Amino acid sequence: MSKLVVSQKIKLAVKNGHGVVKIKVGNTTIGGDQLAVMAGPCSVENREQVLEAARIVKGAGGHILRGGAFKPRTLPYSFQGLGEEGLKILDAARSETGLPIITEVMAPEDVELVESYADILQIGARNMQNFALLKRVGKASKPVMLKRGMSATIEEWLGCAEYILNEGNHDVILCERGIRTYETITRNTLDVSAVPVIKQLSDLPVVVDPSHGTGIRSLVAPMAKAGIAAGADGLMIEMHPHPEKALSDGDQSLHPHEFEALMREMAPIAGAVGKRL
Amino acid sequence: MSKLVVSQKIKLAVKNGHGVVKIKVGNTTIGGDQLAVMAGPCSVENREQVLEAARIVKGAGGHILRGGAFKPRTLPYSFQGLGEEGLKILDAARSETGLPIITEVMAPEDVELVESYADILQIGARNMQNFALLKRVGKASKPVMLKRGMSATIEEWLGCAEYILNEGNHDVILCERGIRTYETITRNTLDVSAVPVIKQLSDLPVVVDPSHGTGIRSLVAPMAKAGIAAGADGLMIEMHPHPEKALSDGDQSLHPHEFEALMREMAPIAGAVGKRL
Amino acid sequence: MSKLVVSQKIKLAVKNGHGVVKIKVGNTTIGGDQLAVMAGPCSVENREQVLEAARIVKGAGGHILRGGAFKPRTLPYSFQGLGEEGLKILDAARSETGLPIITEVMAPEDVELVESYADILQIGARNMQNFALLKRVGKASKPVMLKRGMSATIEEWLGCAEYILNEGNHDVILCERGIRTYETITRNTLDVSAVPVIKQLSDLPVVVDPSHGTGIRSLVAPMAKAGIAAGADGLMIEMHPHPEKALSDGDQSLHPHEFEALMREMAPIAGAVGKRL
Amino acid sequence: MSKLVVSQKIKLAVKNGHGVVKIKVGNTTIGGDQLAVMAGPCSVENREQVLEAARIVKGAGGHILRGGAFKPRTLPYSFQGLGEEGLKILDAARSETGLPIITEVMAPEDVELVESYADILQIGARNMQNFALLKRVGKASKPVMLKRGMSATIEEWLGCAEYILNEGNHDVILCERGIRTYETITRNTLDVSAVPVIKQLSDLPVVVDPSHGTGIRSLVAPMAKAGIAAGADGLMIEMHPHPEKALSDGDQSLHPHEFEALMREMAPIAGAVGKRL
Repeated sequence: MSKLVVSQKIKLAVKNGHGVVKIKVGNTTIGGDQLAVMAGPCSVENREQVLEAARIVKGAGGHILRGGAFKPRTLPYSFQGLGEEGLKILDAARSETGLPIITEVMAPEDVELVESYADILQIGARNMQNFALLKRVGKASKPVMLKRGMSATIEEWLGCAEYILNEGNHDVILCERGIRTYETITRNTLDVSAVPVIKQLSDLPVVVDPSHGTGIRSLVAPMAKAGIAAGADGLMIEMHPHPEKALSDGDQSLHPHEFEALMREMAPIAGAVGKRL
Repeated sequence: MSKLVVSQKIKLAVKNGHGVVKIKVGNTTIGGDQLAVMAGPCSVENREQVLEAARIVKGAGGHILRGGAFKPRTLPYSFQGLGEEGLKILDAARSETGLPIITEVMAPEDVELVESYADILQIGARNMQNFALLKRVGKASKPVMLKRGMSATIEEWLGCAEYILNEGNHDVILCERGIRTYETITRNTLDVSAVPVIKQLSDLPVVVDPSHGTGIRSLVAPMAKAGIAAGADGLMIEMHPHPEKALSDGDQSLHPHEFEALMREMAPIAGAVGKRL
Repeated sequence: MSKLVVSQKIKLAVKNGHGVVKIKVGNTTIGGDQLAVMAGPCSVENREQVLEAARIVKGAGGHILRGGAFKPRTLPYSFQGLGEEGLKILDAARSETGLPIITEVMAPEDVELVESYADILQIGARNMQNFALLKRVGKASKPVMLKRGMSATIEEWLGCAEYILNEGNHDVILCERGIRTYETITRNTLDVSAVPVIKQLSDLPVVVDPSHGTGIRSLVAPMAKAGIAAGADGLMIEMHPHPEKALSDGDQSLHPHEFEALMREMAPIAGAVGKRL
Repeated sequence: MSKLVVSQKIKLAVKNGHGVVKIKVGNTTIGGDQLAVMAGPCSVENREQVLEAARIVKGAGGHILRGGAFKPRTLPYSFQGLGEEGLKILDAARSETGLPIITEVMAPEDVELVESYADILQIGARNMQNFALLKRVGKASKPVMLKRGMSATIEEWLGCAEYILNEGNHDVILCERGIRTYETITRNTLDVSAVPVIKQLSDLPVVVDPSHGTGIRSLVAPMAKAGIAAGADGLMIEMHPHPEKALSDGDQSLHPHEFEALMREMAPIAGAVGKRL
């Protein structure tokens, strides 16, 4: 390696010399030669929507169901999510399809509740450096997926993973979800290079979120493929049974048939880098 | 005004048509024709350091003492602050000098403790979109100073103020502390233009932090003056009795004599824009 | 100075140890205790517009007339400027008012023509690293004002000044005109801190352009004042006799009465930092 | 397509409704189902280096030889390239290997010389908005590869392509080479999403430069693959027979054996998106 320079401090639990961390969730292992696809709607809106989405994800070969019950929103007047009611809906979808669930937790006091339902706890980009929350999920019994902050350096991001590991929870997945740049056509700029950088600097699995990373439906498929080609261990994709009716992120949510097509198209890319879908 | 375009949603409590919010803290009013100077060390390190700093701030004509008891750090292994012990030290400095205290609170569960000591609660840049924390300080009995996130747009920042106002606490001060750009000579790029933008879009007072905004001691004075000239209602300045011994942010902390000189130099700038120090 | 770190290479002609470079243009000296105000329309549109603008600049106490005859435009189909005809109009305005002229030159082959009319040659942000052009104006007989590129680091900017100095032209003025960031309310983010950084790293005078730096008329005055307070040697301000009719940059051009008011308001700020208008 | 919003003006020659532009250079067609690999050293240093590089490129299956004879450097004191002597060396390498040549041209007055040697004229990132140069290569007899400016929006980039097309030269290739962000581990952030955006907004072929896009040798291979997966028509890769001796960009130049391995690894990715190497 020619020149991957980081400050001295980052030589920590995230790079322990014991090899890549493999995290087993249901029948899926994140961090090995299987590519993990997490998909579903941005927000849990109602029972029908989530069950329909779950069936589509399952049918197309996806591995984990995503859906937000607690939603971080720019304004307090926007839809804030269904809370525990949303978690119960996700639980029902898991019961029917067998898909494990990933969902966001936004405050330390909600961790107990959310981990009682979720299979993976998601920490959102806005909370990447919410250290009280990181410490709390560091004591949780479930794996944690830590999204990169909108303008976090990779070193800061790894520092946040360190907060979780330091509390004893070693099942941490990193998620590149786009960084904030001056470009305005895309919602964010998906930093695909973060994938190989993370692979070199840590042992943690890393997944890519091309939905938030671009904000535009027609860019999700090419960027999902780019993420796989760059070495990602998985994908986080927004898919909604009816994107035009979505309460949030409709513009970046795939239609069901687009998700199904993408699942088929990703398989050969995965194969070309020694992974399977 | 020619073209200050924001999304439709931001027409909220931050701009209520009742004029500029004035916030009285001790003998100082933030948001009127007085320029409020908040100064002191980055971290509360020990009793002597804080008392010495408080005397210097008081003697030079500063209005409010700053100092961190809870510290957000990139890594869990760095000094995390003295916690309640730090708050007690700040309390002692207030008792001796009469200076009100501003200090950071990092988690909802700490708000009750911190507000029992502090005169102003500070929300740091990393927690700008920690919505659970914003809601909690929105119910607090003390004013809140909300720092801009490292890559927050002004609209997002105002949206966060809205979270606090929406819970009933209308005493919100905004603090521009530099944004993240590609420039590497400075730690951040102080967005001085945020001051007049905020003045046009909201009724809230806005202060400028040239210490974090530049990260370099020799740039603090010129940027403090720039902030005043642009219309800021106050300043947040790091000053340490012995910067070379500081546990954090020593490079950007003024020496006592530099702070005293700056207080003298700022007065005529303040006068030139119709304010007094 | 605590920590103004640059790469080793920048220890060059821009910092020669002979003190601040003073550049005399007409009756104005740029780089001393006088604040130089360059003002006028973005584009030279016609004789009446420029003469009217020149009289307003002169009457309000401005020192140098600005106006573009060669215009760098995003698309080839936009108004590209009047070329030599525009230079003749500027010449006429100089003859009537006595104001020296600053105007942009965009290509090496145009330098001979432009320097036969202009008192200061302007290199625009898009051409900051057009090295052939820099070398050519380095051989010109007139001072050069070098604008910072939209995303140029300060080191790169100084490197470009070095290209001009290296050819023998030591009369170089630097102009901070806003950098590209993620913020969208303003057209650019005026990096006011570049002023004191440049003062520490070089001997060259530096002026601030709050018009391009913000893109919004109502922000020009506060940011002009901020620039002065931070130590700028001059200002570059767009003023149009009738901004609503401007062929370019109308939204950021001051009305004549706004420019006159700003000239009055800047005087006490200049005085507060030891300069005169 | 859900939401690819650009300003109205960009509906121009770059999107003409006649389908993807295919550019034939030697035996290679850029813009079709073949992936074009351009490789070679950053700078032309001497005859042996270039001939050795050319043989390696040819032997590994690369299509076009790259090498800079005119070099844009941050400081005037750095190696500026061999000029015409460098062009002659490239010519010799072409004679021996049959590989077409791509090389940069930096000034309008050099275009005649450079096009007499080169098969493709490269416009570098620093000159993206050097409009005099764009107009001149718009009249050239050879195809032009236009690199994206370091902080250019995609719209601005397409506007620059328009300058070339507007002069009559329709053989324009776009090259994404990384944009400037706050991240410091990588030299730039390769905006892979620019590839599908360009594909939707224009008919021009687009190639990806993972060498400048990352600045780090170990990231070139994964990002080259990411570019292909996202739909790029080709790659621009720095390879040096002896990177440790390179006069420029040694840290990001592949060793010969790394380039050969990458050629093998890229083939199945190309196949997975319907292209061949």
